[in-house]
Amino acid sequence: MDHLLYGAAYYDEYMPYERLDQDIAMMKKAGINVIRIAESTWSTEEPEEGVFDFSHVTRVLEACEAAGISVIVGTPTYAVPAWMAKAYPEVMVMEKSGKRRPYGARQIMDITHPAYLYFAERIIRKLMEAVQGYECVIGFQLDNETKHFGTCSENVQIKFVSYLRKKYNGDLEQLNRDFGLAYWSNRIQSWEEFPSVVGTINGSLGCEFEKFQRQLGTDFLQRQGEIVREYCREGQFITHNFDFAWKGHSYGVQPEVDHFKAVRALDIAGCDIYHPSQELLTGREIAFCGDMTRSLKKDNYLVIETEAQGFPEWTPYEGQLRLQAFSHLASGADSVMYWHWHSIHNACETYWKGILSHDFSENAVYREACRIGREFRDLSDKLLHLKKNNRAAIMVSNEALTALKWFPMPGGEGDYNDVVRWMYDALYDLNIECDFVSTKEEELSRYDMLLVPALYTVDEACLNRLKEYAAQGGYLIASFKTGFTDEKVKVRFDMQPYVLGACFGIQYNQFTKPDGVRLKDDFTEIPEEEKTARVFMELLEVKGAEVLASYDHYAWEKYAAVTKNTYGKGQCIYLGCMTSGEYLKALLKRVWKEIGAYGWKQEVCFPLVIREGVNRTGKRVIYYLNYSRNVMKVTIPFAGEELFTEKAVAAGELLDVNPWDLLIICCES
Amino acid sequence: MDHLLYGAAYYDEYMPYERLDQDIAMMKKAGINVIRIAESTWSTEEPEEGVFDFSHVTRVLEACEAAGISVIVGTPTYAVPAWMAKAYPEVMVMEKSGKRRPYGARQIMDITHPAYLYFAERIIRKLMEAVQGYECVIGFQLDNETKHFGTCSENVQIKFVSYLRKKYNGDLEQLNRDFGLAYWSNRIQSWEEFPSVVGTINGSLGCEFEKFQRQLGTDFLQRQGEIVREYCREGQFITHNFDFAWKGHSYGVQPEVDHFKAVRALDIAGCDIYHPSQELLTGREIAFCGDMTRSLKKDNYLVIETEAQGFPEWTPYEGQLRLQAFSHLASGADSVMYWHWHSIHNACETYWKGILSHDFSENAVYREACRIGREFRDLSDKLLHLKKNNRAAIMVSNEALTALKWFPMPGGEGDYNDVVRWMYDALYDLNIECDFVSTKEEELSRYDMLLVPALYTVDEACLNRLKEYAAQGGYLIASFKTGFTDEKVKVRFDMQPYVLGACFGIQYNQFTKPDGVRLKDDFTEIPEEEKTARVFMELLEVKGAEVLASYDHYAWEKYAAVTKNTYGKGQCIYLGCMTSGEYLKALLKRVWKEIGAYGWKQEVCFPLVIREGVNRTGKRVIYYLNYSRNVMKVTIPFAGEELFTEKAVAAGELLDVNPWDLLIICCES
Amino acid sequence: MDHLLYGAAYYDEYMPYERLDQDIAMMKKAGINVIRIAESTWSTEEPEEGVFDFSHVTRVLEACEAAGISVIVGTPTYAVPAWMAKAYPEVMVMEKSGKRRPYGARQIMDITHPAYLYFAERIIRKLMEAVQGYECVIGFQLDNETKHFGTCSENVQIKFVSYLRKKYNGDLEQLNRDFGLAYWSNRIQSWEEFPSVVGTINGSLGCEFEKFQRQLGTDFLQRQGEIVREYCREGQFITHNFDFAWKGHSYGVQPEVDHFKAVRALDIAGCDIYHPSQELLTGREIAFCGDMTRSLKKDNYLVIETEAQGFPEWTPYEGQLRLQAFSHLASGADSVMYWHWHSIHNACETYWKGILSHDFSENAVYREACRIGREFRDLSDKLLHLKKNNRAAIMVSNEALTALKWFPMPGGEGDYNDVVRWMYDALYDLNIECDFVSTKEEELSRYDMLLVPALYTVDEACLNRLKEYAAQGGYLIASFKTGFTDEKVKVRFDMQPYVLGACFGIQYNQFTKPDGVRLKDDFTEIPEEEKTARVFMELLEVKGAEVLASYDHYAWEKYAAVTKNTYGKGQCIYLGCMTSGEYLKALLKRVWKEIGAYGWKQEVCFPLVIREGVNRTGKRVIYYLNYSRNVMKVTIPFAGEELFTEKAVAAGELLDVNPWDLLIICCES
Repeated sequence: MDHLLYGAAYYDEYMPYERLDQDIAMMKKAGINVIRIAESTWSTEEPEEGVFDFSHVTRVLEACEAAGISVIVGTPTYAVPAWMAKAYPEVMVMEKSGKRRPYGARQIMDITHPAYLYFAERIIRKLMEAVQGYECVIGFQLDNETKHFGTCSENVQIKFVSYLRKKYNGDLEQLNRDFGLAYWSNRIQSWEEFPSVVGTINGSLGCEFEKFQRQLGTDFLQRQGEIVREYCREGQFITHNFDFAWKGHSYGVQPEVDHFKAVRALDIAGCDIYHPSQELLTGREIAFCGDMTRSLKKDNYLVIETEAQGFPEWTPYEGQLRLQAFSHLASGADSVMYWHWHSIHNACETYWKGILSHDFSENAVYREACRIGREFRDLSDKLLHLKKNNRAAIMVSNEALTALKWFPMPGGEGDYNDVVRWMYDALYDLNIECDFVSTKEEELSRYDMLLVPALYTVDEACLNRLKEYAAQGGYLIASFKTGFTDEKVKVRFDMQPYVLGACFGIQYNQFTKPDGVRLKDDFTEIPEEEKTARVFMELLEVKGAEVLASYDHYAWEKYAAVTKNTYGKGQCIYLGCMTSGEYLKALLKRVWKEIGAYGWKQEVCFPLVIREGVNRTGKRVIYYLNYSRNVMKVTIPFAGEELFTEKAVAAGELLDVNPWDLLIICCES
Repeated sequence: MDHLLYGAAYYDEYMPYERLDQDIAMMKKAGINVIRIAESTWSTEEPEEGVFDFSHVTRVLEACEAAGISVIVGTPTYAVPAWMAKAYPEVMVMEKSGKRRPYGARQIMDITHPAYLYFAERIIRKLMEAVQGYECVIGFQLDNETKHFGTCSENVQIKFVSYLRKKYNGDLEQLNRDFGLAYWSNRIQSWEEFPSVVGTINGSLGCEFEKFQRQLGTDFLQRQGEIVREYCREGQFITHNFDFAWKGHSYGVQPEVDHFKAVRALDIAGCDIYHPSQELLTGREIAFCGDMTRSLKKDNYLVIETEAQGFPEWTPYEGQLRLQAFSHLASGADSVMYWHWHSIHNACETYWKGILSHDFSENAVYREACRIGREFRDLSDKLLHLKKNNRAAIMVSNEALTALKWFPMPGGEGDYNDVVRWMYDALYDLNIECDFVSTKEEELSRYDMLLVPALYTVDEACLNRLKEYAAQGGYLIASFKTGFTDEKVKVRFDMQPYVLGACFGIQYNQFTKPDGVRLKDDFTEIPEEEKTARVFMELLEVKGAEVLASYDHYAWEKYAAVTKNTYGKGQCIYLGCMTSGEYLKALLKRVWKEIGAYGWKQEVCFPLVIREGVNRTGKRVIYYLNYSRNVMKVTIPFAGEELFTEKAVAAGELLDVNPWDLLIICCES
Repeated sequence: MDHLLYGAAYYDEYMPYERLDQDIAMMKKAGINVIRIAESTWSTEEPEEGVFDFSHVTRVLEACEAAGISVIVGTPTYAVPAWMAKAYPEVMVMEKSGKRRPYGARQIMDITHPAYLYFAERIIRKLMEAVQGYECVIGFQLDNETKHFGTCSENVQIKFVSYLRKKYNGDLEQLNRDFGLAYWSNRIQSWEEFPSVVGTINGSLGCEFEKFQRQLGTDFLQRQGEIVREYCREGQFITHNFDFAWKGHSYGVQPEVDHFKAVRALDIAGCDIYHPSQELLTGREIAFCGDMTRSLKKDNYLVIETEAQGFPEWTPYEGQLRLQAFSHLASGADSVMYWHWHSIHNACETYWKGILSHDFSENAVYREACRIGREFRDLSDKLLHLKKNNRAAIMVSNEALTALKWFPMPGGEGDYNDVVRWMYDALYDLNIECDFVSTKEEELSRYDMLLVPALYTVDEACLNRLKEYAAQGGYLIASFKTGFTDEKVKVRFDMQPYVLGACFGIQYNQFTKPDGVRLKDDFTEIPEEEKTARVFMELLEVKGAEVLASYDHYAWEKYAAVTKNTYGKGQCIYLGCMTSGEYLKALLKRVWKEIGAYGWKQEVCFPLVIREGVNRTGKRVIYYLNYSRNVMKVTIPFAGEELFTEKAVAAGELLDVNPWDLLIICCES
C-alpha cells in the first residue's frame, strides 16, 4: 500500500433498490478509496447447495475497477445459509447445555465440523475464482471476527482428549497431578473414561479446554489462509478483523482468540474498533486496540471496522468523526474503514448505523467524512506507515484472562481486563505510548519499562525472562496475582510471588478483599480520597524492598501494599492491590522521571492527548488530539509544519486545539 | 341487559366444604346479581377422558335460578386436565427452547394442536348441552384470557410457512427482499428449506411470526364462538375477558392478542382490569382499559374481572372499592365483576384474594361491596349504558408494539406502552376523555384531536389516512418513531418521517439517546426541571414547521425537538423526543385551548378526575372521582341531581368530594 | 470423648508433593489432635470400577497412630468418580428441566438410583474393612452434607406417587380435596395418571414433594448408618456434618434436610459452620448453628467444619480465629475442626483457604491455631461437655420454610429464615440463650418462653400443644403467618389465627404489605425510626387482648399490630408484622423482666456476648466474648477463676475484655 486507505464495508446484496452507481459517486465525492465486500453473504453467493451466483460481487468489482476504488474481499464463511442448517443440522454449534444453537444468528456454526468445513472450503474457492481477474482487489479478509463460539460437542470432546493425550504422552497420572483431579473425585484412570468437560469444576481443566478452543480458531484461520493464498496475486494481502473483549464496546484482550498466535495466518493485522462517543469519547479504545493490533506483527495495521454513526447513543458530535479517524492514524493504522456505508433496513443491526442513514441522503456524518477523505488524500504521504519506538510495554495473556474468569476476584469485582485497562489507561492519560507483548516475547530489553498486570497463570520460563529483564536494568512493574499459578493453573506451592519474589524483595501468603482499607504513603501529590485499596489486596511482607505504601487499617497496618526494590541493574515495583487510576498515574509519573523519560508530553495530559511517530521520510509527526469540549492550548516543542493549515510553527509557539479537534505537527527533522 | 351487573367469579368446585346456600345468601345480601362460573374447571367436568360430570355447574345454576342471580358460563378450555397431558403430551405448548411446558399451570397447551382442539370442542358441546335449559344463564364467556402462549412447534412452523407462501403468492424473492433476508446469509431459496424462526435475528420475520401467532389466537376464539353460538338462546350473549399488557398490573396494549380483530367473535366486549391500590390507586388503569375495551365495539362493555382484595399490597383502603366500581361505570362499563367471590385455599393464587377472605366471614371489603351493590341497584336506570362522544382519540397498534420490542429504544428504556401511557395519562390527568382507534380506522374525522404514539410500523394507507385527517382540519399529534418502518418492519428508505414529513413540515435522518439534553422553549408554565428530553431523540430539521422546542445542548442546539405545522385545514404537532408527563400536559392544554375544547373540566385536574357521558334517557351524567386522601372542592357547572344524596344541585354550587370518594351529578338536560 | 477435639480435614490425596510427616509434625506443634479424612476421595479409593486402593487412607492412619492423632473417617459417597458417570450416566441427578447434571461437581448424583446405591454400599464396606484395625479411628462421618439434590426423575416421581397412595390409603378424592387440585383443572382421577410434579403450580403438592425429597435424604443417611454400624468398634461413634441454609454463609434452617429426623441415624450430631469475618464477625452464626445442632440430640455436638482462612474476604484479623474457636465451645461444641488443613492448589475451592496457605509455611493463622491448640489442651477438662439449661426456645419447621418459599411474602422480601433470625438474633444480642425445638416437641413446658416464628404450616396437634403450653403458664410469642395453613399447606378456612386465636385474644382476615406504616405504642425506649412495620402486616382485631402497638397509618389505625393476652396461667404475645431488631429486643427485654429472668447478662449486650453452661464437675463456666474492635469492661458477677490467666476473680470485679478477645470465668460453685 502506498497511500492511506479510507473506506467502508459495502453490501450491494442488502440494497432495497438499485443504487450502485449512485453509491460509487457518493463514495468518490467523500474520498473513499477502498471498500470491503462479501464477508457476510454466503446465502446470496450460494443460494442453494452447490449453486453459485457471484453477480453481486462481480458487479461491485466492475464498478470499483471503473471508479478506481480498491476492494478487500471477505470470505463469507462466518454466517451459514439456511439450507445448510436445514439439511445438516449438525453444523450448528452445540452449547454447554447440550443444545445446538437454532438457526438465525451468524457465528453459530461448529467451526470444527467436517460438513461445515467442506462447504466453507468450496465457497471460498468458488469466490476466489470469481474475483481473480480484478485489479481493484488489493487483499482478502479471512472469515470475520473468527472465534470458536464455545463449541463443545462430542467430536470436540474427543479432539480435546486426543490433544491432552499427545500433550501428556499418554501419562494420565501426570495430568491427574497437574490438574489436581483427585479433588472431589474427579480423578481419571483411563483415557476412554475421560468425561466431557462441560460440567467441570476444575479450573485447570476448564482453562486448558478454553486454550484448546482458541487453538481451534487459530487452526481454522490458518487453514483458510492457506486456501486463499493459493489464489493470491503478487501484492495482494491477507488480513483479518480481530476484535476485542466487549463491554458495550471494544474494551480489552479478546478472551476467545489468541491474537498473537492467530495473526501468523495473516500478512497484515487488522481489527474492529468500537468505542463510546459523545461525552464519553476519550480515544482510549482507539489507542488501546490500535497499540494491541500494531504489536501483533510489530508493524502498521488496518482498521477494518469502526463506527460511523453506530448505535443511537454513539451519534457523533461535530468534529468527533474526524478526531477519531486521525487518532487511528496516530496509533499506526494505515486505514480507517467504517462499518458500514449505509444503514441496514432490516434485522438486528438496523440501529448500528453507517455513514449514510437509511434514507441514503447526505447527512452531517457524510459531510464530515468528505472532509476526512480529502485530508487523508492530501496528507497521505506524510501520515502513512507511521512507525513507533515506544519505551514502555504491557505484557498480556489470554491464559491469565481465562484463569481469572475461572478464579475471579472476591465478590466478582474487577476482571483481568480491568487490571489491564487500569495500567493502560494510566499510561494513555500521561501521554506515555506503549506496545503490548505476549508472554512468549524474547526481546523485552527493548523497553525501559515493562508493566505486567495480573499475570495469574504463567510458566517458569516467562517468569525467568521477567527476572532477567529486571536484572539487566529494566523497570519491572507487576500487579497482585502475578505468577500465582503455573501454566496448568495450579497454584504454586512455594512462597509467593513465585520466582519474582527475589526481584520485588517481598513475599506473602495471605490476601483479602479490601473493605475500607486506605493506603498510607508519602505521595503528597495524590488527593487523600484516591488513596484506597481496591478489588484485591495481598498482605505483603518485605524482604528487602522499600515500602512505597502500606495499608492504613488497624488489622493490616503491618503489611505493605506497594513496594520498590533494586534487583541487579533494574528496579522493580510491586502493586499488592488495585488502586485508583490517579494513584497509579502518580506512581508511573515518578517512575517515568526516574527513567529519565519524563518530558514535554507529560507536561499536559488527557484530555489533551499526544501521540507521535516517524513517517516514511524519517520525519517526526506529532498528533495533538483534543478529547474535550473546551479549547486547549499547547506549546509546540519543535519547529515544523502544522499539516491541516500548512503553516510553519516555531518551537515554543502556543497554539489552540479546538474542541473535539486536532493538530498535526510534522517536525523539521 | 337492562340493569347494571354486579358480580364475581364463583367456583363451587374449589370449596373446602358445602357452602352453596350460604354463599348465595351472602351474595344476595351484597346485591350481587351475576356470577361467572366454570371457566377453569375442565378436570372437574371431565375427570376422565370421555366421562362427564357437570353436577357442580348445574347445582350452582339451580341455586341461581332460585335466587334470581344471573350466570355467565365460561368454557373451561384454558386449563387442560392432567389426564390429557399424560396421555397426549403433544398437547403441551412448545417453548422457544424446543421443550414442551411441563404439566401444571394453565395456559400452557398448544392451541393449534388437533388433539387439544378435539377435546376442547367436545367439552364445550357437552357443557353447552348441560346448561341449555337454565333461564339464569345470560351469556357465555369463550375460554379465558386467550393467547397463543408462544406456540412455535414444528406444526406451527409449517403453518407459518404456508401462511407466508399464500401471502406472497409463492414469491420467495419478494419475501427475501421485503424482510432483508440477505443480511447475515439468512436468504431462503426454497419454501421447503424455510428454517424454524425461533432463532431468527430478523425482526421483520420475528414480527411477522408474532402477528401470525396472534392470528392463531383470533382464529381460536372465532371457532369457539361458532360452536357456542350453535347453542345460544335469543338474548344470550357471547363475550370474552380480554386482558392487557402486564407490568405488575394491567398496563397497556396487549402484545399477544389483537383485540380489534379478536373482538369480532363476540357480542359484547369484556375485559379483566387489575390495578395498583392504596396510595398508588389513580384510576388510570380503570380508565385506560375501559376506554380501550369500549373502543373495540364502540359500545358499552363488561368488566368481567377486577380485584376485590387482590394481592396483599392491594388490600383496599376504606372507600377505594366503591370508588373503583363507579369509575368502571364512568368509562362505560355495564358490569363490575370481581375475581373472585372467595379466596382460594390452595395453589398459586392463594394470595390473590376475593371479596371474602379464606374464612368466608363478613369483612371490611364485603361490607363495602354491600353498599356498592345497593347503590348499583338503586342507580342502575340512571347509570346503565353510558354513552361517550369523545373529541380525542389515540391510535394504537399491536404491530408497532411488537416491532418496538424487536427494535427497542437505546438502553432498553421505555417501550411502546410507555409511550402510549405517556400520552394517555396526560389526557387522563387533564380530564380529556378519549377513544382508541386501530390503524384500520376509517372514520378519523370524528375526532378533533388524534394522538399517534410511536407508530413504528405502519402501512402507507394508514399514513395517508393520517395525512388526509390533518388536511381536512384534524389536529394530528405524533411522536418520534412514527412511520419509521413499513408494514414488513423494513425501515423506509426515504426521508423521515415517511409520508407525514409534509404534514409536520420537518425531516430527519439522525437520532440519538438523550444524555443530559434539555428542552429550550417559551413554555413558561412548565418548571425548568421538567424540560428534559427522554428515552429517544430525533434530530429534527424544520421544513416549514414552527419550532415549539429545540434541544438545549451544545452539540444538538441546531435541531428541533417539538414542532408545529399547519397542513391543509389542520394542525400537526410532532414530538421528536419523549418528555415528562408535565411537559406533555402543558402542550396538550395549549392544543385543547386552540381547538376550543378547553373548559370547566380542565379547570381541575388529577387527582380530581371528571368523567362523563349520556345515559339512556339522554341525560348528561358527570362523575367526580377523588383519587386522593384529601377532601377536594368542586364547582358544579350545571344544575342537576347528586345521585347518592338525591339532592338537587345548582349550577355553580360548591361541593366537597371526600377522600377516595365520588359524586355523580345527573344533569337536568 | 474425654477431651476437646481440635482438628482439621486432611487430604493426603490432594498433596502436590510428599508431605505427610511434615504435616503431622506441624499438626502436633499446633495441638491438633484429630483429623477428618477420606470423605471426598472416591476416585482415589476406587480408581476403576471394582479396583480398590486405600493406600492414601491407611498411610495417614498409620502416621496418626504413631503420632497420637485421632481420625474421623468419612465415607466418600458424596462425589462420584468419572468412570461411574461415563458408564452409568443414569446415576447423575435429573434437574427440574429434565436434564441430567453434567459430570464435574460433587453432590450431583441421584441418591435414589440403585446403580449409585450399589456402588456406594460397596465402597463403604471396602473402606470400613480397610480402616477396621486402626486404634486412632474414633468415629465415622456418613457421607458429607447429604441432601436430595433436587432429584425428580421418573423413578422418583413413581416413588412419590406410591408414597402418596400409601399415605392416603388409595383415597385420591381426599388428596384432590386436601390439595385443592380442582383449581386450574389439576384434579387427578386415577393414580396412573398422576402427572410429574416438576411443573406443578400447586404449593400443597410442591411442598409435599419436597418433604418427600427430604425423607429420601433421611432414608439415605439411615441406610448408610446401618452399613457403617456393622463395622463399628465399641466406642467408635457415627456422626455427620449437617449444614445450614446458605446466604453467602451459614444462615438458617436447612431447607433440604430435616435435621431433627435425619439426626436419628447418628450417635453424635455434627455440623459445618461458616460465617462472615473481619468487621462482620458477630458470633451470631456460631451461636445459631451451635444452638441448633445441640438441640438435635439435646446434647453436645461436633463442629466438623468451620473456616480457618476461608474466602479472601474472611481472612481473620488477629484474635478472631481464637475468639471463634472458644465461641463454639461456649455453645456446647466438643470439637472445633477446620476445613481444612491446607489450601488446595486446583479447582473450585482454591480460594477457600485452610489453616495453611498454598505455600504450606507457617503463617499468621497457623500461629494463632497453635495458641488455640495449647489452650484447648490446657482447659479441656474445664470446658468439655458444657451443659445448658436454657429458659427460652424457638420452634422451627422445615415445612414452614418450604411453604413460605412457595407462598412468599409480598414482593419477595423476607423469607422464613429471615423471620427466624430476626427472633434468634434479638435473643443473642440480649444474651438470652435458647434451644431450638421441632413441631413434634412434647416437652415445651421446660421453657419459660417459647418463640414461634412464622409457623405457616402446622398440624392441629402442634397448635394444641402450643395452646396448652400457654395455658399451663408458658410465655408464648408468635409472629404473623403462624398457623395460617394446615399440614397440607391448605389455608385454614376458619378465622385466623387458627386454634391460637383464643390464646392471643385476636382475630384477623385481612393483611397487606406495609408501605410507610409506622407503629404507635408507648415504648419510649425505642427510637422513633425503629418503629416501622416491615415485610408483612396482618390487620389484627382484638378480642380481649391488650394492644401493645397499633398501626400508625390513616387507613389502618383501627387495627392492632402487636398484642398481649393472658391465657390460662400464661401470657401470649402476637406480632402481626415484622419489626426492626431493636424493636423486638425492647419487647423481649420487657418479657424477660416479666418472667423474672432478666439479670446481669442483660445489663450488657452485643457486641459483648455472654454464654454459659455447667461443666462436668458441675461448675458454672461463663464466656465473655468481645465481638468488637474496642476494649469492653465487664463486671464479673460471681467469684471464680479466669481460665486463661488462671487468676482468681472476685464477685463484682471489673475486668477488660480486649478487642476480638475473650475471658472465661469458671465460677467457684
